Amino acid sequence: MTSRRPGRTQARDLERYASLFSSRTQNMRSSPMRDLMALTARPEVISLAGGLPDTSTFPAEDFAKLMSHMAVKATARALQYGPTEGIDEVREAIVRVMAAEGTDVDGDDILVTTGGQQVIDLVCKTLVDPGDVIIAEAPTYPGAVPTFSAYQAEVIQIEMDEDGMRIDVLEETLERLDREGRRPKFIYTIPNFQNPAGVTMSAPRRRRLVDIAHERELLVLEDNPYGLLRYEGEPLPSLYAMDGGEFVIYLGTFSKILSPGVRVGWAAAPRPVLQRMNIGKASADLCSSTLTQLFVAEYFAAGQWEAYMDELRALYRGRRDVLLESLAKHLPAEASWTRPEGGLFIWATLPDGLDTTDLLAKALSRNVAFVPGRAAFLDGRGGTSMRLNFSGVDEDRLREGVRRIGEVVHEQLDLLGSLTGRRPGAIPRPSERATGAEPRVDPALADVLHLPRREDDASRRSSS
Amino acid sequence: MTSRRPGRTQARDLERYASLFSSRTQNMRSSPMRDLMALTARPEVISLAGGLPDTSTFPAEDFAKLMSHMAVKATARALQYGPTEGIDEVREAIVRVMAAEGTDVDGDDILVTTGGQQVIDLVCKTLVDPGDVIIAEAPTYPGAVPTFSAYQAEVIQIEMDEDGMRIDVLEETLERLDREGRRPKFIYTIPNFQNPAGVTMSAPRRRRLVDIAHERELLVLEDNPYGLLRYEGEPLPSLYAMDGGEFVIYLGTFSKILSPGVRVGWAAAPRPVLQRMNIGKASADLCSSTLTQLFVAEYFAAGQWEAYMDELRALYRGRRDVLLESLAKHLPAEASWTRPEGGLFIWATLPDGLDTTDLLAKALSRNVAFVPGRAAFLDGRGGTSMRLNFSGVDEDRLREGVRRIGEVVHEQLDLLGSLTGRRPGAIPRPSERATGAEPRVDPALADVLHLPRREDDASRRSSS
Repeated sequence: MTSRRPGRTQARDLERYASLFSSRTQNMRSSPMRDLMALTARPEVISLAGGLPDTSTFPAEDFAKLMSHMAVKATARALQYGPTEGIDEVREAIVRVMAAEGTDVDGDDILVTTGGQQVIDLVCKTLVDPGDVIIAEAPTYPGAVPTFSAYQAEVIQIEMDEDGMRIDVLEETLERLDREGRRPKFIYTIPNFQNPAGVTMSAPRRRRLVDIAHERELLVLEDNPYGLLRYEGEPLPSLYAMDGGEFVIYLGTFSKILSPGVRVGWAAAPRPVLQRMNIGKASADLCSSTLTQLFVAEYFAAGQWEAYMDELRALYRGRRDVLLESLAKHLPAEASWTRPEGGLFIWATLPDGLDTTDLLAKALSRNVAFVPGRAAFLDGRGGTSMRLNFSGVDEDRLREGVRRIGEVVHEQLDLLGSLTGRRPGAIPRPSERATGAEPRVDPALADVLHLPRREDDASRRSSS
Repeated sequence: MTSRRPGRTQARDLERYASLFSSRTQNMRSSPMRDLMALTARPEVISLAGGLPDTSTFPAEDFAKLMSHMAVKATARALQYGPTEGIDEVREAIVRVMAAEGTDVDGDDILVTTGGQQVIDLVCKTLVDPGDVIIAEAPTYPGAVPTFSAYQAEVIQIEMDEDGMRIDVLEETLERLDREGRRPKFIYTIPNFQNPAGVTMSAPRRRRLVDIAHERELLVLEDNPYGLLRYEGEPLPSLYAMDGGEFVIYLGTFSKILSPGVRVGWAAAPRPVLQRMNIGKASADLCSSTLTQLFVAEYFAAGQWEAYMDELRALYRGRRDVLLESLAKHLPAEASWTRPEGGLFIWATLPDGLDTTDLLAKALSRNVAFVPGRAAFLDGRGGTSMRLNFSGVDEDRLREGVRRIGEVVHEQLDLLGSLTGRRPGAIPRPSERATGAEPRVDPALADVLHLPRREDDASRRSSS
């Protein structure tokens, strides 16, 4: 047995089963991060592609102690089914974690999920029919793209700047949709240290977004995995806190503050929505692991979690700084990148004419990886950008990784110059649409990564 | 915080959000077993409603030892994301477990899932569009009913007898569908110790079912959570083994042989189907818990699992016998029930004129619970039947539970006799359609349990 994904399909096999597949499978796209995980599993690869916290910082002896404690108290319970909505102790821990971010929540308004990802899936299940509109940021979380696609949503992505989603553009879009008689099912946003852009929504924009939700009775899905990972500046109130739980669905997770391997996330939502999400969850996986929920509860009851957060923040702040320095050192002067105050990601944009999907193939051959920008869009944009993670790799490897990326970028720039005689173009802002420059996606790689190819781009663009 | 489910909804709240809900929410039904879990959590309640293995049989010291071992070797890995398809070690354990049932499987044909329930969800996601036909058994697994409903499938349920699904009826149904130009997306069966009926599909019927799948190029979903829990008689080959992995999707789980709290199940499936299920899983929850997968792998590597299975079999065999004896002692002569050779459930059918949903309300007031038969049908049938679990409750409580159920049944029979002057009718077979007798479902309870009410029954019946 190998660790690769299920084998490539023979054409004749596909034909045999194709007529049995649901229409949603036509839209389903695999996640580039998931696919890259397999490609980057070898230890010699420096992967800035994942969104992996550094779990090696968690002391093995603490882990063993918590588990032994749980065994003494609750082996039978840990191994048994639990309630769909989650065990009480973990919902109590969630109330404390949200309080640490200044957000009050009632434990009965919480549904424990199998990671934050399941919240996105359940919100779509509860709200989205094929063809329905979801509003997201441009770029958006690459892991949400396959979920939105599986539910056959039409996703409209709203430009961002250094203050997060452009609420003026959002309002124009809502006006246009109004005139077309369409109401978006929800607005998806990551207000803190956005994945992948790294920017944070300003307080006035948060206020305005919540007001819009109330004025128009629109639901907002606030995805907040990184809120506690702030390295500088003042925390801002959550949309959920501003809204009072009327129109905001809050997505939280222990993945980035403790462990993604426990697969414990949560939603806090208005009751009628939460109730349907609960039913949707029961039909999807009955309940999340009781064993890992009890582990999470033990961990938060042990009272060391805030000290561990301090440790993580210090570690990741240092790595962010190293990544920023390395980018300045190795990327060409025409490149630009965001400077996040927290979270895990930096979004870098290369001179126009370069294509990061194309570049990834070359980067992989030098044992370094990133997420190509197209993975963060549903409409083919993002070809000149890349998402770089700084939490999962130590400082020396970060430096070396960026050095290799810089090498590949400069080679491509030289090649581009000698082929076309043209100078690299102006630096596009993160939110700008890629210009008419030829996307030069290696079709084989696009296939491996399930990225949109040129023909897909065209069809996607025309439909949104 | 209380342990109850998310609060009841105010009518005005519902209105506010209703227009945002997807059309599938109209079809979504909550799982009666899940709802009953909350109602039966108090220790004074004897619940024969769950499908709970007795996890108190797993030694706490073994649990602690396995966990410490894992901490030393792999804390960082246990806490980290894993590949969508599952970690290699757990897929190796799966290959061994399937081999113990006489089924060869390639580790690359396996997708690890968040419990067996997720396999049902992913198969529907991959194959089912609204209105598509799924063929299931009558009765079928009550936990599959909400999933089939969420995917807006039309479910046709095929009668069973003591040899499992009536393949002659299946063939007639397939002929009829053929004439209507309809091809079912898959045939769902639990061949071993069926949930809820307790019957096992005979070898000739297995052979014939696999032949039909090949002749008609139809997919079969073989749900086999209990195959290793056989208390008497000879094991029969799996459909997957007979088929060679061409048209059979195999669903396995560690829930009943180790622990449901780890939420680790799996699918073995033809590659083109598995590949799409993998994409569907990544969009649903990224991956299953690495921590619990490593625990499962450690447990199977430790080599004691077959001894533990012997222990479980001895325990559950004894409980099954106690339940059978108690039913003979406490149910009226006109009642009938199945005698399973393994698994966790007995299906009992009461004299015509009684309604088990109605009865459940009265049973709960005496602190005993079961799953009413209607939960195992999508068309309103099953009103005179109930599913009784014998794995989760010790022998004394089983005896006392059945005594209380018997008391309630006799009281209802007396009431029925004095109200109508009529004798209880003939004993319906498990697979027979409930006759025209008035269903007397308490509307409040039907609401709590989200069971179909009379008006729902009528509309469901007319559409299938």
